[in-house]
Amino acid sequence: MISNKTNSKNIYNFKHTPNLVLNKSFKLQNGSILSKPTIAYKTYGKLNSTKSNAILICHALTGDQYASGINPITQKKGWWHDLIGKGKVFDTNLYYMICTNVLGGCMGTTGPKSIDPNTGTYYGNSFPEINIKDMVALQKELIDNLSIKKLLCVVGGSMGGMQVLEWGTAYPERVKLVIPIATSFRHTAQNIAFHEVGRQAIKNDPHWMKGNYIKNKNAPEKGLAAARMVAHITYMSEKALSNKFGRTKKNLNPLSKIFEGTFEVENYLQYQGSSFVDRFDANSYLYLTRSMDRFDLSEKHKGDLEKIFKSNICRWLIISFNSDWLFPTSESRQLVSALNANACNVSFVEIESERGHDSFLLKVPRLYNIIRGFLIGAKYK
Amino acid sequence: MISNKTNSKNIYNFKHTPNLVLNKSFKLQNGSILSKPTIAYKTYGKLNSTKSNAILICHALTGDQYASGINPITQKKGWWHDLIGKGKVFDTNLYYMICTNVLGGCMGTTGPKSIDPNTGTYYGNSFPEINIKDMVALQKELIDNLSIKKLLCVVGGSMGGMQVLEWGTAYPERVKLVIPIATSFRHTAQNIAFHEVGRQAIKNDPHWMKGNYIKNKNAPEKGLAAARMVAHITYMSEKALSNKFGRTKKNLNPLSKIFEGTFEVENYLQYQGSSFVDRFDANSYLYLTRSMDRFDLSEKHKGDLEKIFKSNICRWLIISFNSDWLFPTSESRQLVSALNANACNVSFVEIESERGHDSFLLKVPRLYNIIRGFLIGAKYK
Repeated sequence: MISNKTNSKNIYNFKHTPNLVLNKSFKLQNGSILSKPTIAYKTYGKLNSTKSNAILICHALTGDQYASGINPITQKKGWWHDLIGKGKVFDTNLYYMICTNVLGGCMGTTGPKSIDPNTGTYYGNSFPEINIKDMVALQKELIDNLSIKKLLCVVGGSMGGMQVLEWGTAYPERVKLVIPIATSFRHTAQNIAFHEVGRQAIKNDPHWMKGNYIKNKNAPEKGLAAARMVAHITYMSEKALSNKFGRTKKNLNPLSKIFEGTFEVENYLQYQGSSFVDRFDANSYLYLTRSMDRFDLSEKHKGDLEKIFKSNICRWLIISFNSDWLFPTSESRQLVSALNANACNVSFVEIESERGHDSFLLKVPRLYNIIRGFLIGAKYK
Repeated sequence: MISNKTNSKNIYNFKHTPNLVLNKSFKLQNGSILSKPTIAYKTYGKLNSTKSNAILICHALTGDQYASGINPITQKKGWWHDLIGKGKVFDTNLYYMICTNVLGGCMGTTGPKSIDPNTGTYYGNSFPEINIKDMVALQKELIDNLSIKKLLCVVGGSMGGMQVLEWGTAYPERVKLVIPIATSFRHTAQNIAFHEVGRQAIKNDPHWMKGNYIKNKNAPEKGLAAARMVAHITYMSEKALSNKFGRTKKNLNPLSKIFEGTFEVENYLQYQGSSFVDRFDANSYLYLTRSMDRFDLSEKHKGDLEKIFKSNICRWLIISFNSDWLFPTSESRQLVSALNANACNVSFVEIESERGHDSFLLKVPRLYNIIRGFLIGAKYK
């Protein structure tokens, strides 16, 4: 029950600030129009007088604008808290950091759980299809509104990395440094397949009600938790799971208990699933996973990735992790190859980490050092 | 609805023959007793006068005793139809092939959908915990009943391979050749995690009713289909999925359709899920996945795999596939290493195949040639 479990800070009634309400309609790639959408965002540090120190951080599928500090919904540290702050990698003495909740999200930016101003009721399943291009176009509205002509950098991992790729190719004149991390220019069949299992789990939940659950105050929490569980496995390497849990067993009555969990890894996944539903909306999960699946940077040129980077003027740093099997290094190499085929300014690093796709969210010193050095070094170029 | 969709050949009322009803009780590893359990099985070829040509085939998680010929439930060819028959790899001119439905299964051998003779009602969630050792012990009852003193060979893949490992170590004097394929001596945390997602999907389905759905004539079909979907992804390599589907799209209205599938791979998975529920029981899926997760050949010796093979007299052939990421070659190598450390008679082949774990079920000529040669060659040793 949405109404039972929540307090004033639940995702269905919390007011996220700051936010920008566009005083115009916003046209999506599929032709639909959003009336006066809201962009919820957070900033860290100060914009300098020449407005040349702004860095846009793009969050991943289940991330949000609370990249640093305490997240008001979860009461936990932001997903890149360790990287953002005074003297940190993204040094707020030097840079002005901006992070927006993505279009279609559930933390204040317009999405399926928002009220449609035209009808006065929740969008639910009437929310239009969105894609990565739309997310980035909406972010650009905020950047325009802040009168920032050129971002110093756009950076992000996974779905955030897809937004970064879109920024660097759709608006190359608006960004100097482009850092896509642990991402790809398009999903493989396997990526799509894992997402589809999660979507089926949500849609199988009788509380989903074809997407119109909010007015019934009953969210499809079991389905969303199962979707999170399967996704979470793909975020970790086999070795990371083995190192963390191996075959450690829970304390069990040796008889019976067949329908209960046996191993610690089961507990962990169940916890990951059940805690997720307190901070995420099931419809947002459906819309955002679809956006990722449909993203294909090469589609405009019928699969020819090289053409997208023709005459690109940005400075690129592409980062992958050797144990990431969701977005393996081979996919980053395709991006590097396409950039090199255009004599673009591109650097590439594959970072050794045993922790799989999630490495971009974890304390990986080499990741920190490389981003820090790249940002400082780029000042003098 | 179990009652609606079924005909006389549905899994809940079809009588599988032949079968052997044990005229005694059968004690499980966890101490529980099964009263007069049934073993449903199929045979192909003829047992010779010296009873020295019998080969036991062990099926995988969702397999059954209909290894060859037409499966009476699915009306499709058996899962190893291409390998079993006159002149085939398992040449029925030479060998007597036996395949049993496993304990806990749903094709005639006693399992959670069987009637408990003590109560006259379905076992459901009162079915006791079973493990791979129990499955093999029950198979041995059939072999004893057929008066076969020594099997020529025990062979099988995946969960079948676990049974093969159990045969070769629990009853080495009862089997000459042992061929575990695409398997492991125990599950990793990742293996367990994927299974747990499937179990959660079943248990989240409101029709599951804590395992007592049969009397309500409503099976948790959506949950079981979702479990099958996630498992199916793990059975294929990323390359196999990409080769088969890539990013091929279904015909779509470009507007709307956000809650429908976009890609062919989604259709395929949905089909795999929905067709599976016609031939499998959800509780069996829970019990059998648990058996696999809990299997650990090294547990008896506190993780020391070498000790289990001490003085082992069997002739071993271990087979893995290079694209199998569910049971990677490295795990087969651990078995080979432990056998070698005991100077056991072991051969090992890693077969090149792009098709992932499922390769053991597919037309892979090298697999066929190796098994054929091994069986013929072993005659003269």
